[in-house]
Amino acid sequence: MARKVYIDNMPLDQALDLVMNRLQSVVGLRIPEEEIEVQQSLGRITAEPIRARKSSPHYPAAAMDGIAVRARDTLGASETTPVLLYRDQHFVEVDTGDPVPADYDAVIMIEDVNYKDENTAEIIAPAVPWQHVRSVGEDLIASQIIIPAFFPVGPFEIGSLLTAGVTRIKVVRKPRVAIIPTGTEIVEPGQEKMRPGEVTESNSRMLGGLCEIWGGLPIRRPIVPDDRESLKEAIMQAARQADMIVICSGSSAGWEDYTADVIEEMGELILHGLAIRPGKPAIVGLIEGKPVLGIPGYPVPAALVFELIGRPLICALQGITPPESQTLEARVARKLASSMGVDEFVHVTLARVGSDYLAFPRARGAGSTSSLVKADGVLVVPRGLEGYQPGDRVHIKLTRPLEVVD
Amino acid sequence: MARKVYIDNMPLDQALDLVMNRLQSVVGLRIPEEEIEVQQSLGRITAEPIRARKSSPHYPAAAMDGIAVRARDTLGASETTPVLLYRDQHFVEVDTGDPVPADYDAVIMIEDVNYKDENTAEIIAPAVPWQHVRSVGEDLIASQIIIPAFFPVGPFEIGSLLTAGVTRIKVVRKPRVAIIPTGTEIVEPGQEKMRPGEVTESNSRMLGGLCEIWGGLPIRRPIVPDDRESLKEAIMQAARQADMIVICSGSSAGWEDYTADVIEEMGELILHGLAIRPGKPAIVGLIEGKPVLGIPGYPVPAALVFELIGRPLICALQGITPPESQTLEARVARKLASSMGVDEFVHVTLARVGSDYLAFPRARGAGSTSSLVKADGVLVVPRGLEGYQPGDRVHIKLTRPLEVVD
Repeated sequence: MARKVYIDNMPLDQALDLVMNRLQSVVGLRIPEEEIEVQQSLGRITAEPIRARKSSPHYPAAAMDGIAVRARDTLGASETTPVLLYRDQHFVEVDTGDPVPADYDAVIMIEDVNYKDENTAEIIAPAVPWQHVRSVGEDLIASQIIIPAFFPVGPFEIGSLLTAGVTRIKVVRKPRVAIIPTGTEIVEPGQEKMRPGEVTESNSRMLGGLCEIWGGLPIRRPIVPDDRESLKEAIMQAARQADMIVICSGSSAGWEDYTADVIEEMGELILHGLAIRPGKPAIVGLIEGKPVLGIPGYPVPAALVFELIGRPLICALQGITPPESQTLEARVARKLASSMGVDEFVHVTLARVGSDYLAFPRARGAGSTSSLVKADGVLVVPRGLEGYQPGDRVHIKLTRPLEVVD
Repeated sequence: MARKVYIDNMPLDQALDLVMNRLQSVVGLRIPEEEIEVQQSLGRITAEPIRARKSSPHYPAAAMDGIAVRARDTLGASETTPVLLYRDQHFVEVDTGDPVPADYDAVIMIEDVNYKDENTAEIIAPAVPWQHVRSVGEDLIASQIIIPAFFPVGPFEIGSLLTAGVTRIKVVRKPRVAIIPTGTEIVEPGQEKMRPGEVTESNSRMLGGLCEIWGGLPIRRPIVPDDRESLKEAIMQAARQADMIVICSGSSAGWEDYTADVIEEMGELILHGLAIRPGKPAIVGLIEGKPVLGIPGYPVPAALVFELIGRPLICALQGITPPESQTLEARVARKLASSMGVDEFVHVTLARVGSDYLAFPRARGAGSTSSLVKADGVLVVPRGLEGYQPGDRVHIKLTRPLEVVD
């Protein structure tokens, strides 16, 4: 029973550099784009800088309800020397948003106007030129860049774009990520009776959800049994329809070796084996210019490898980098041993104690979906450390909003 | 020109209490729910606690590749006194995930097995009972609650639910939020030629985007001209199809008065006027048991009132409360004056200076969509303060991820 030893056992940062460099030199920086309606663009990433097509306001606009005047007609007005203004000759009434006529240059708030009669307004303070007038382009100037390239479109951007007369924009096409579950023992969800040894396939749906949150479009492929030919055929089909391929392994012995072999045969094997725990048996390759990621079968390492390698890849295909995780300083609640030589990722539960947080390491079961659900964050024990002592100050990457912890 | 004075000029916290109490006493706590596929449930909110239907693992499973044994057969094994085990009599080979046969209780890793011949395995250390065996229910126990009620379903929850044999769940039905743009001067986006005084309608799309992010289902209604009968008809139609109604005002004079009047006539006026700036002319009512929110016409106060009042309402309709905003400590970069008696919300741009952040107040134009796009956060000047001096330490509510600031 010959077993292949990990030829690579690469530290994570080095692995990421390697993968990104290979991806760029093979695929280049061409990010596919598409044009869509601004009204449908919530959450999308701009593919180019977007310029205003119209100024806003596009006319000089009253910023208050009141009367539009010429400032020079109001010079010298005071409580002791009020100035009288006559309708049409010196003023017109305007409501907020109304155009200020061409020969007027100021608006006096209605509260500051004393009507002597229907057509005569008395004021007791002079107007400053352009007071309460929104000049053309005050908010947006036609042709000015209002949103940079590779920027996420949120509700405010939508408001600003529409105001600027922009109704269609070029955005990054969502990278299509084919997710191939493999394993002869794997069955689709919803089986009433399961035999011992059968396992419900759930990783592809978990990874699909993560992919969606990170801006990708997951395409879940049918389950592939554990044999080389079926896997090759599945990868070939996926490569035709997707921008990236994720192979979710089953738990069969030797999956890594033959997945790595198949990738090498069909394209280029970039990486096999990461110096992390869990998640050591990660595989990265390129087939027809498309990144292929081999992911361990257990849910905890599967989620971790997808976050550490899959997320930067999905972001790179959109021209962006993953946002920083929110972190929290905490104290380690109990002794935590870890192996030298690997970055270890430990799920923790946080508890607030006074102004401090205590981080309780959770049981490190690779098969524990409940650990993923119940953890508040992840503690990384760097590969140079043997672990932490109770009370050590650490930074926890939060995996859910902090308030749930409190 | 009689103008109604704000009868209410209510502090925000008091206003929120009032609105929530009225909503609860009229509508009660009935949160509409629906049953959906777990695979379609990403981002939804559970409507009830969800229990596992199956244990996971559902059989004792090998956690390693190796041989399944009876621990008692391995007693006393050591380097000097190795123990020989015979195939089928003392061991069977198992791969990770395979069932451990009924009369076996431990797995020895393949690396620790020395095969003397095809059918004879030598070991030099005893196995501890249940080592490398995942016992039934180690991850999830059938009937155990795995996700509480009113909890957001993320990728990990989906993985856990499917593993637990759950394929359909009850979730909160997304609250349908009818958004009615009003204003005779308002035109749909995409008009090539616009006359002075015409304004592109964008607020309903901005608020729709916010609504979607907060878990609601925005229903954008056609633009309604400024007259009472049209508004009443539009509200009536919206009340039939939606769980909440948002009226985006145009900029016409007196919109508040007649919107408030119409709400009072059709149902109950709860609130008219908030002690905040911008956003003072906010209106809240109830019509046919549905919250109705009147929103100022300018984008900056519109976004603010929707965040401060609309968001808690949309969350309440889902049985949840809005998450805390991420905040950042910063120093005020320049003098900032504010009126006593109102909570003032000022958009700021942040700049990192050494280990400190400086908060630069942006121009306070209510019509500035670019302010919304370019701000990094919001500084609240509480109603008891006249403003801040340069260097004052303040907390900024971030409106975008901090890294963009760095």
